Amino acid sequence: MAKEPKKLDELFHDTLKDIYFAEKKILSTLPKMVKAAQNEELKAAFEKHRGETEGQVERLEQVFAIIEKKPQGKTCAAIVGITDEGAEIMEEYKGSPALDAGLLAAAQAVEHYEISRYGTLKAWAEELGLDDAVDLLQETLDEEEATDQALTEIAKSAINQQAEAA
Amino acid sequence: MAKEPKKLDELFHDTLKDIYFAEKKILSTLPKMVKAAQNEELKAAFEKHRGETEGQVERLEQVFAIIEKKPQGKTCAAIVGITDEGAEIMEEYKGSPALDAGLLAAAQAVEHYEISRYGTLKAWAEELGLDDAVDLLQETLDEEEATDQALTEIAKSAINQQAEAA
Repeated sequence: MAKEPKKLDELFHDTLKDIYFAEKKILSTLPKMVKAAQNEELKAAFEKHRGETEGQVERLEQVFAIIEKKPQGKTCAAIVGITDEGAEIMEEYKGSPALDAGLLAAAQAVEHYEISRYGTLKAWAEELGLDDAVDLLQETLDEEEATDQALTEIAKSAINQQAEAA
Repeated sequence: MAKEPKKLDELFHDTLKDIYFAEKKILSTLPKMVKAAQNEELKAAFEKHRGETEGQVERLEQVFAIIEKKPQGKTCAAIVGITDEGAEIMEEYKGSPALDAGLLAAAQAVEHYEISRYGTLKAWAEELGLDDAVDLLQETLDEEEATDQALTEIAKSAINQQAEAA
């Protein structure tokens, strides 16, 4: 018997599980990045984002509640790959003046993945008429974009010069 | 004997190998996405981006030449993870009205990864005084951002409604 084809509400739910897994993975990775970062400003930015990420996980749990589903993660191959690359940087550039530049690049790859996912989820929530979910997803999207922007500023101000000069 | 710590020029070279691998992976994935897409506008957008990606690979080869290195890829765990997720969508949503929405989301995750990588490489090229490389990387960055924007427009115009209504 053929299965009923999946529709947008299921794609939304699947992708929500994917980003829920991703946020929890990021939450477990950020303390390592705080510890590894040499530049104080970068350390502080990672620490601030760790706090924000906790709030983002809670917002996702609210979105699960809106669609009357239990909060549940689903292995997200993308974030596993992106964070593996970050771990590789921490390993290969340990003790190097370029370590912070590499950590920063890894963090921006994470941010961009999240920006893409939250942008998509928000568009789907609009289409599905889930207005409260739209607001929650927009709030997180704004935070991710601000974090990406803050990281760009830190890169310009100090990190890239440090990597080159030392 | 301790190794000399790696500096920004090496991080630039490593990341160039990473995105070179990623672009080639994307080049082999796009024809599958062209074939899978149901919406003609989306098919055309993927096909157009396949052509652009060929040019982006060539630009990367020019950047390798600028730093006097042989063009060489290095497995990029991030793009492997991101494209694996796209493959999963093609499999799980085959025959579903939400397939195109899922393909589009997968493509935007790829674009955002690239935008983050080219943004980083361009900033490092500036720091390293590689002016010709800055121009090449900027050209590709502009293309990736335009592609992401075009995909957002297609999503709004047709795909998300199709996914919901069918």
